[in-house]
Amino acid sequence: MAAGGFFTRHLAVVGLGLMGGSMALALRPYAETIMGVDPSEETRCYALKHGVVDAVTDDLRVGVAEAETVILAAPVGTIVSIVKNRIGSYLRSNTLLIDIGSTKQDICQEMGRLPVGIHAIGGHPMAGKERSGITASDPAILVDRPFVLCPTRRTTPATQLRALALVEAIRAVPIVMDAQRHDHVVATISHLPYLLSAALMATAGKEAEADEAVWRLAASGFRDMTRLAASDVRMMGDIISTNTKAVATLLAFFRVQLGLLEALLISQDEEKLVNALMPLRDQRMRWAEAYEQKRSEPR
Amino acid sequence: MAAGGFFTRHLAVVGLGLMGGSMALALRPYAETIMGVDPSEETRCYALKHGVVDAVTDDLRVGVAEAETVILAAPVGTIVSIVKNRIGSYLRSNTLLIDIGSTKQDICQEMGRLPVGIHAIGGHPMAGKERSGITASDPAILVDRPFVLCPTRRTTPATQLRALALVEAIRAVPIVMDAQRHDHVVATISHLPYLLSAALMATAGKEAEADEAVWRLAASGFRDMTRLAASDVRMMGDIISTNTKAVATLLAFFRVQLGLLEALLISQDEEKLVNALMPLRDQRMRWAEAYEQKRSEPR
Repeated sequence: MAAGGFFTRHLAVVGLGLMGGSMALALRPYAETIMGVDPSEETRCYALKHGVVDAVTDDLRVGVAEAETVILAAPVGTIVSIVKNRIGSYLRSNTLLIDIGSTKQDICQEMGRLPVGIHAIGGHPMAGKERSGITASDPAILVDRPFVLCPTRRTTPATQLRALALVEAIRAVPIVMDAQRHDHVVATISHLPYLLSAALMATAGKEAEADEAVWRLAASGFRDMTRLAASDVRMMGDIISTNTKAVATLLAFFRVQLGLLEALLISQDEEKLVNALMPLRDQRMRWAEAYEQKRSEPR
Repeated sequence: MAAGGFFTRHLAVVGLGLMGGSMALALRPYAETIMGVDPSEETRCYALKHGVVDAVTDDLRVGVAEAETVILAAPVGTIVSIVKNRIGSYLRSNTLLIDIGSTKQDICQEMGRLPVGIHAIGGHPMAGKERSGITASDPAILVDRPFVLCPTRRTTPATQLRALALVEAIRAVPIVMDAQRHDHVVATISHLPYLLSAALMATAGKEAEADEAVWRLAASGFRDMTRLAASDVRMMGDIISTNTKAVATLLAFFRVQLGLLEALLISQDEEKLVNALMPLRDQRMRWAEAYEQKRSEPR
């Protein structure tokens, strides 16, 4: 591959949740030693016992001091704070610093203020699982999934090549885009859908207070539409709170589209309503077909 | 069972789509003969060839003339028109007339104007499938699913008992409620979710016009939230157009809930936002657990 094979002597993974653990496992063959940094003793013990990492610490400075490659896999707010306040003075020169937070503008902005010589780039593997935490770690969730890379002011061409090699090593599909564009896209496909799901659940909950038949009659369509409302709330709160502007923009766009459909409904012009809904159905079917095909392709 | 066993000599099913076909198959053991009424020659041939019914016609009068039990399984708008304009003069006295349309107020109101002696009751089996049409017919989709019964002015206690027996014969779970209540509940759990799914698809489509990365990065959460947008558009248009008032009411309630979450987001009070989202998650998890358990119980 153009980016060249990835190898690092000392890798540090900061934050050993589902994603940090999965990244560590995926990079096992490409790192001489892996150090895990996490505030939870239980998590550290699990990671060590199950060979997710080779050594653990709760001390960020100790954890990253020898690293050639550092992956920040904490919540977005924590990553911002680590990059802003601490990690710059802990890292060796020439270290590759990559994060895997779900929003990128705040993090990439802080990365741009790191000392020259730190090779920092934002990252977002578009992968996940219903279960969370180190015990759910699985390198397979990264395979064939998009892995967005967002260059910062501390991303040299060499930084980007190293990051591309890392992404290809874990068999994800790299997509380079700037942080603002990333945050707008994920607001569309992820954060807006989450809020709609939560607001639908809130609406149904209010209705069910007056009439419990709501719960008895709800079926598979309702189940699909409320699945996201059952996401990890602290994680989603952290994510959307660091993407307020894009999410608020998408909410405004969404209201326009919903209002158009409502107007056609209330005007009782069934033909016009059907004509507005038909292309949405076609578009959904085209997208879903391509998506499922991509998911089922032999690797 | 209290309602007594169901048996009918002559059953007529008007409209041989997925639901009409499934009802016919489910009632096979409880009817001496089944007559299918459908405007499509292809559908009639299929139904006859595969033993879904014993005889077919495209003439409503001929189809229902000898029936003791008539099931109206056409689109809601068509059912309303049949009940309003035609079927009253075609039916024998004492016939049980039940429909299985997805909204109930318009239909039940028209049923109330039928000649005295017609035993009419509204029905709605809460079942379905991604595929539609007679070829997808399957009596199993009705089993253990709620089957709402909505009494009309032409529903005597004896009518209701016969309808309950019919529902129990097909192994569905009868729930009796008035038509207005039914329509409000299905607006909450089905029609509002459909419009949200369509409006989300419209929003994503607009964003994708400016940036096709929307389609490349969209994943399972987006897939779940847009699945309903791929529903049969003519069918959904027919359904929501006959439930305008309830759907518009629920849209207004939904906007309030969405606005509350948005206000917490924009005010940047992550703790309050998380506190608002947490009970929604808990409620969704409780409901989904009960729902999945009900689905997997041995019959």
